[in-house]
Amino acid sequence: MNNKLKQLDEQAVQYIAVGAAVLGTGGGGDPHIGKLMALEAIRKYGPVRVLSPEELADDDLVIPLSMIGAPTVMNEKIPSVQQMAMPLDLIEKELGRKVTAIMPIEVGGGNSLVPVLAAAERGIPILDADAMGRAFPESQMVTFYLDGIDCSPITMADERGNGVLMHAIDGIWEERMARAITIQMGGSASICDYPVSGAQAKQSAIPHTLSLAYDIGKTLFESKDSKQNPIEALLEQLHGYALFQGKAVDIRRRTEGGFTKGEAVFEGTDAYRDRMMRLFFQNEFLLATEEGKSLAVTPDLISLLDQDTGMPITTENLKYGARVVAVGFPCDPKWRAPKGLDTVGPQYFGYDVPYVPIEELAGGKGEKL
Amino acid sequence: MNNKLKQLDEQAVQYIAVGAAVLGTGGGGDPHIGKLMALEAIRKYGPVRVLSPEELADDDLVIPLSMIGAPTVMNEKIPSVQQMAMPLDLIEKELGRKVTAIMPIEVGGGNSLVPVLAAAERGIPILDADAMGRAFPESQMVTFYLDGIDCSPITMADERGNGVLMHAIDGIWEERMARAITIQMGGSASICDYPVSGAQAKQSAIPHTLSLAYDIGKTLFESKDSKQNPIEALLEQLHGYALFQGKAVDIRRRTEGGFTKGEAVFEGTDAYRDRMMRLFFQNEFLLATEEGKSLAVTPDLISLLDQDTGMPITTENLKYGARVVAVGFPCDPKWRAPKGLDTVGPQYFGYDVPYVPIEELAGGKGEKL
Repeated sequence: MNNKLKQLDEQAVQYIAVGAAVLGTGGGGDPHIGKLMALEAIRKYGPVRVLSPEELADDDLVIPLSMIGAPTVMNEKIPSVQQMAMPLDLIEKELGRKVTAIMPIEVGGGNSLVPVLAAAERGIPILDADAMGRAFPESQMVTFYLDGIDCSPITMADERGNGVLMHAIDGIWEERMARAITIQMGGSASICDYPVSGAQAKQSAIPHTLSLAYDIGKTLFESKDSKQNPIEALLEQLHGYALFQGKAVDIRRRTEGGFTKGEAVFEGTDAYRDRMMRLFFQNEFLLATEEGKSLAVTPDLISLLDQDTGMPITTENLKYGARVVAVGFPCDPKWRAPKGLDTVGPQYFGYDVPYVPIEELAGGKGEKL
Repeated sequence: MNNKLKQLDEQAVQYIAVGAAVLGTGGGGDPHIGKLMALEAIRKYGPVRVLSPEELADDDLVIPLSMIGAPTVMNEKIPSVQQMAMPLDLIEKELGRKVTAIMPIEVGGGNSLVPVLAAAERGIPILDADAMGRAFPESQMVTFYLDGIDCSPITMADERGNGVLMHAIDGIWEERMARAITIQMGGSASICDYPVSGAQAKQSAIPHTLSLAYDIGKTLFESKDSKQNPIEALLEQLHGYALFQGKAVDIRRRTEGGFTKGEAVFEGTDAYRDRMMRLFFQNEFLLATEEGKSLAVTPDLISLLDQDTGMPITTENLKYGARVVAVGFPCDPKWRAPKGLDTVGPQYFGYDVPYVPIEELAGGKGEKL
């Protein structure tokens, strides 16, 4: 990884939108929309300072700000600065103090950049960290939950001016209530949850994921202009594995219970000719299989990249006939501990396969493209 | 009507549980459970002072407190003092001031008495008024909504300790969000909404409905010991009409979307032999018909009374074979204005009949039993 990011300017937003969509494993919001929103905010209010977790004082107040809901809906209801400001206003009022830094709750083309709107408008920094190290569909799927940190108070808003504040007894109850409210709010909402102290952020968040997203985006953009294959460059950078290469021949996608759920089938091309991969998703890509055998399993990261440019493809924007490379990366070790696997392992999502680390599935090496 | 109630003691709770169930038109919560809860609170904390709306100062703060959800569920999840206190605590904190009086949002065997728990525990009065003059199933079905009063802030709690505060842009959005939260909370929840000033309560609430419920209950209890038929005594007292007399031969009841919905069929007895009445409900009895002709239509009040004792029967407790008299009463005039009928008229509930005042349907006089 390169030096840590110090501020988010227009160039950094371009890189992060793409890099975060790779780590967002198909979810975490649309990178194009995240980029447009963040660019508009930066043009209006100026660049946003990036704070590294080590720079936090123990009693600082860090508040995650994100969009919750089905990506299908978020592509059509683009949040405004006002909608992002309302949950922050509500939570600051409830806590009786001002926020030190805003942080992304997850890595994703949308949710890595959504905090930029509020940070730019208020002139406060954004934290170079998140609580997943990737994207996941449900609100309790955060390192803060694994570490027993209180999720409350939780605040939410829609684009009309409806606002909600909740005290949930745990992250599971937050998810139930917040999801029900999100559905009523039309399928997407802005949300602040797990307000943490500087000490908690340093102990529990996954650090430097904005910097990592920036580096990934930079690699993909720069490889355009060099002779290196962008996907190879990326796999090298992230110690990842190529899982499959092919084209999308069947995509089933439905919006259900506030999620975008479904599966896609890919027919192999090139070295993968005569082979088929199935990819299962709930907002994020969660399981890749070939002939019933797992290629990669949640919580390890699965991303789809455009075969030519290496640009990431979200669950929502995957189109019939798309030529892709599926890649996999190891998740943060926190997710591989028992509570991590209970929370985000394949059984939780209803997939009847065991979790096997991607390093084992890939036999210790990635297949060559 | 007799003199106004001055305090709620055990005797008053007995009367109100029954009288409010008559005005609650089958809904508004179970009178037996409401009574047990209120009696326990009064035994522990002493009688509760009753405040008449005229006694309010214009800048007093009056907060309605009730249970929201399906009666089917509320009969099994009896709320505690703690569950009733939480929404009050949350709304007082949000408004930054203490409540002057708690009021019932509707008249019903449960919801007329639910405020007694919190009033007794805090030693504050309960207002002799409500915002429906009967019971209705949805939260925007209140005179406050007709009069354009802001429903927010709204606070809710479940029995586990989950609490919610909402700022809804209008009563319709409150209903959507509060109902979704109620379902997640297991089908019933405690709620404060439409916090009003003393001036607003005097202008918009329906006054003296606790006193009215008390009087009705007293009439029914006392007629037990006299020679007068209790139902005739009641109809005389309320200027009401007997609609039908018969026994329940078919009851279809389902819990759907946080409501108890369904219909019941009655076979005529005595003077009504060889006739049939259908009764449609959503938490409350909303429409009574005979051979496709309306006998009484929401928002006018329809109640079922036990043929022998005159005791009211809720939608939830109606049993196959029950021998009943169906009675009807005119609603408060506010409900008969255009916005009232838009909000609670038969079309709103999906019944394809026009609203005709019960005085016209009954031809100016009640049929004799």
